[in-house]
Amino acid sequence: MTLLSCFELGIIDALRDRPGLTAAELGEVAGAKPDAVEQLLLLLVKEGFVAHDEASGAYTLDGLAGVSDKLLEQALADLNMIKAVTLRQLFYLTESVRTGTVAGLKELYGYDGDLYGALGELPELREPWAKLMNTVTAHVDPWFFENVDIPAGSNVLDLAGNTGLGAINTLRLKGSPGLRVTNFDLPEKEKESLENFRAHGVEDQCSFIGGDVFEKVPTGFDVVLIKHFLPMFDKSDVLRILKSVHQSLDAGAQVHVLVPVFPENLKDTENYTVDFYPSFFVGCTMGQGGPQKLSTWQSWLEESGFQVTKAITDDPANLPPHALTVEAVLSATKIA
Amino acid sequence: MTLLSCFELGIIDALRDRPGLTAAELGEVAGAKPDAVEQLLLLLVKEGFVAHDEASGAYTLDGLAGVSDKLLEQALADLNMIKAVTLRQLFYLTESVRTGTVAGLKELYGYDGDLYGALGELPELREPWAKLMNTVTAHVDPWFFENVDIPAGSNVLDLAGNTGLGAINTLRLKGSPGLRVTNFDLPEKEKESLENFRAHGVEDQCSFIGGDVFEKVPTGFDVVLIKHFLPMFDKSDVLRILKSVHQSLDAGAQVHVLVPVFPENLKDTENYTVDFYPSFFVGCTMGQGGPQKLSTWQSWLEESGFQVTKAITDDPANLPPHALTVEAVLSATKIA
Repeated sequence: MTLLSCFELGIIDALRDRPGLTAAELGEVAGAKPDAVEQLLLLLVKEGFVAHDEASGAYTLDGLAGVSDKLLEQALADLNMIKAVTLRQLFYLTESVRTGTVAGLKELYGYDGDLYGALGELPELREPWAKLMNTVTAHVDPWFFENVDIPAGSNVLDLAGNTGLGAINTLRLKGSPGLRVTNFDLPEKEKESLENFRAHGVEDQCSFIGGDVFEKVPTGFDVVLIKHFLPMFDKSDVLRILKSVHQSLDAGAQVHVLVPVFPENLKDTENYTVDFYPSFFVGCTMGQGGPQKLSTWQSWLEESGFQVTKAITDDPANLPPHALTVEAVLSATKIA
Repeated sequence: MTLLSCFELGIIDALRDRPGLTAAELGEVAGAKPDAVEQLLLLLVKEGFVAHDEASGAYTLDGLAGVSDKLLEQALADLNMIKAVTLRQLFYLTESVRTGTVAGLKELYGYDGDLYGALGELPELREPWAKLMNTVTAHVDPWFFENVDIPAGSNVLDLAGNTGLGAINTLRLKGSPGLRVTNFDLPEKEKESLENFRAHGVEDQCSFIGGDVFEKVPTGFDVVLIKHFLPMFDKSDVLRILKSVHQSLDAGAQVHVLVPVFPENLKDTENYTVDFYPSFFVGCTMGQGGPQKLSTWQSWLEESGFQVTKAITDDPANLPPHALTVEAVLSATKIA
């Protein structure tokens, strides 16, 4: 919050425009007492974001000077999402764990339900969330489609495809003659999904089926995509979903899964997924779920009857430096 | 919160009593789903607090096994105070900086004022706060009195001495024939202060003067103690207080100041005061104030007319391993 607050107060922008401002001058910019500005900037000096010349009192950007506008915008999207979606909510972590609900949403917003429901009603959550998700999707979706094989002319089901953007991306990135994509999600997503198909001119290749994945998965597809969905659930529900998909398919059909993963070596200190995600899923989004190791996702696919043909993790070197998530793709086939 | 939540859920106590419990068994202890317990414990395994045998699923205490009950209680006092006093409040840091008030107290509790006022009304803040302060005082007060010289028979003023415990400690730790200690604080502290003096049997050596340090400091004292008070204010008010004390004294009288300090080298990565205190004072307790470097406190004493005779910082090796604060003692004399 100290770093984010320096952005919110306009201190960082002011130092970019006018290097060498003093605490008194920055106080005027921020509409705050110079003493408070000085206190906040101590940590930014310690961490090398900002430099301070004690003799003249002048502050200048240090490490922050070398960060591109684009990267900075993405990093701020992370910080703003964390502030809105996790910071205060984690106060209620224990209650969330005990009840299997996001207790913080109830306490802070009077909202009964999970984050995904709350996003629809609360712009103060939706806006920072959407901004971050756009950043993440811009990186992850192309990587996912690079790594999955969707044979020409396939009949594809995008499971829990929300408002159809995954279906549209499938056509855009893996299009082939005869390819068709069906978005399967709750019936209330139909209208926006069909509108999106029309807006992107893909209404002839895309369709929508309304239903509930925990009741019945539609049959007759060659390829099923399951993106950003499994980590929302505990093991028993993940297995229900995967078994239900398995049952819906003919032998030879394929499933491609996109999931966040913990490192196989939990003690890997370069990887922060273990620091962030458990409390994020359990305490801030679903009251359950969370990433798993790649080997765990693989074993759950196998337990559901699939033969896993591919299981790869995004290369950390390929991730933006601010990325919180490491994603994996698992491909699997229904065997006869 | 992930670590604290494992304590709140009884997971750590259960592992101390019965090493080798699985996530399923710990879920029963915690009244939570095993999946959520597993997610939370990932970070404790990463950090070496807890060990996990993946083959059997058994959890045991790892680093936490070697922490004494006393130290653990003190560390939990820190975590509980941080949860209650800072976690949610920091969401409002920017507003606190802009208004010079603790915006989080207003937003979360509808309380208009600083933390010290809020403690009187809100047990959910007072209890974790008091528990931590008792831990801190148990270490800091003996160290302070070891390092100050209070000549036998002195007439001592404890400035902003709250409910008189500092006065009582002065007698207990620096007692001498004829020594007298006066607690000077707001008039509403008189009743509890006098009760405390009677309860400790020091009512003959201790007295109370009601007043406001920003109006007038009582005169006629040989020694003035200023403990845990100056960091609550910005520079201009610290100087007002020190100048007012200076004016109240005769030449040769002494002042002893106890204050938290930042390291002279802000980039010292072993020292966490810069990480914690700026947002703590500005965002969670006073809407202003904060520690300073020892050299800054010294210069402010000199700017107020004092001659500094001693300026020492508590040895980090002497601090409990969980200590957030590094304290300093400065002694100074009014010169003719």
